[in-house]
Amino acid sequence: MAQLMEDKVFMAFSTHAAIVILKMMLMGPMTAYFRVTRGSFANEEDVARKSAEEKKKLLRSHPDVERVQRCHRNDLENIVPFMMVGLLYALTGPELSVALLHFRVFTASRLLHTVAYIGKLPQPSRGLSYLVGVVVTFSMAYSVLSSALLL
Amino acid sequence: MAQLMEDKVFMAFSTHAAIVILKMMLMGPMTAYFRVTRGSFANEEDVARKSAEEKKKLLRSHPDVERVQRCHRNDLENIVPFMMVGLLYALTGPELSVALLHFRVFTASRLLHTVAYIGKLPQPSRGLSYLVGVVVTFSMAYSVLSSALLL
Amino acid sequence: MAQLMEDKVFMAFSTHAAIVILKMMLMGPMTAYFRVTRGSFANEEDVARKSAEEKKKLLRSHPDVERVQRCHRNDLENIVPFMMVGLLYALTGPELSVALLHFRVFTASRLLHTVAYIGKLPQPSRGLSYLVGVVVTFSMAYSVLSSALLL
Repeated sequence: MAQLMEDKVFMAFSTHAAIVILKMMLMGPMTAYFRVTRGSFANEEDVARKSAEEKKKLLRSHPDVERVQRCHRNDLENIVPFMMVGLLYALTGPELSVALLHFRVFTASRLLHTVAYIGKLPQPSRGLSYLVGVVVTFSMAYSVLSSALLL
Repeated sequence: MAQLMEDKVFMAFSTHAAIVILKMMLMGPMTAYFRVTRGSFANEEDVARKSAEEKKKLLRSHPDVERVQRCHRNDLENIVPFMMVGLLYALTGPELSVALLHFRVFTASRLLHTVAYIGKLPQPSRGLSYLVGVVVTFSMAYSVLSSALLL
Repeated sequence: MAQLMEDKVFMAFSTHAAIVILKMMLMGPMTAYFRVTRGSFANEEDVARKSAEEKKKLLRSHPDVERVQRCHRNDLENIVPFMMVGLLYALTGPELSVALLHFRVFTASRLLHTVAYIGKLPQPSRGLSYLVGVVVTFSMAYSVLSSALLL
């Protein structure tokens, strides 16, 4: 059992997986922050103590809230596949240096993606950071399929 | 191979992971139920047999359907990270009692979250149950990073 | 470590998991393709070089883009649970033939689901392919809970 956690590649995977998951989960509180500061809520019970007129105002959508949600959704679409493919990839026993390269580039690409998305940086900063993450995941998926193909 | 499934902590993780995944997947049929009863569909092919006038009515959004979808999305944003972090956490070999506490509190918090969301319970019931789940996941992520840090 | 990847059931799981993840991730570029060809963007920085009038046109939603996004979201809601439950299921040591049946039917159902969704095939093609995937995942979750129940 503890054997897995003594493997260097698996330790590296665990570290980077934990970091990108924590980053992804912080989008939740960030959405809440934008909801409160921009006055844009989705549920009636969230504005229960307000007057009828205020409620109507507060239950509108706001571009900043929607932006954080798109960023969060993009995380789900990319970080979750990375976690699953990365786990299988770590189990195929790759070289530590090669594995670390994959994990580090992915983590960096997703941090940059969030900065580019929330900071509204000019393109292609967001597009490129997204693409780099996809390429890393595809490279790991290729390794998994190469070392364990059984259809 | 079968060794993992003989480990008490891993068995506990498997049980709780299976339960929260089943809960999350039931949001799919629940969305379908609200779509049918509220008459609110997203795809034209879903209302193909209706008249043109009825189609227009049925292809509108409905607040109850959107509520279930928000609940489902919140599950994805929180249960999926729990599953990945929990898997790594179970592999670090924690005390069974401590691990069970994490898993049980998380499962309970997500069940309460769904009840609070779909039942439109007054706040802070939904907010608190969401927060408890986040704290449990962060606590497990901290354990993973403490026992296997390799950047 | 490498032991897992010598197990036939685990190899079969890795192969099918990699395939459905790659399929899911291709929805990203497909969304980008529909955004460009339909002229429907979500972020201002994506249309920064256009005139003010063109921007307004390009920042509208388009039904084809929303359809790909719904398909992508359905993938997240179903393929991610399959990956987690499938991993635990593979660790319970099922018969290779039974496991292969589960994995193959699931992979086929999700490929069909995408074809039915993007191709706007008449119902119940999309509904049935979705349902088959759910049944496979529930069957695996039942196996996991049967062989390792610790609440």
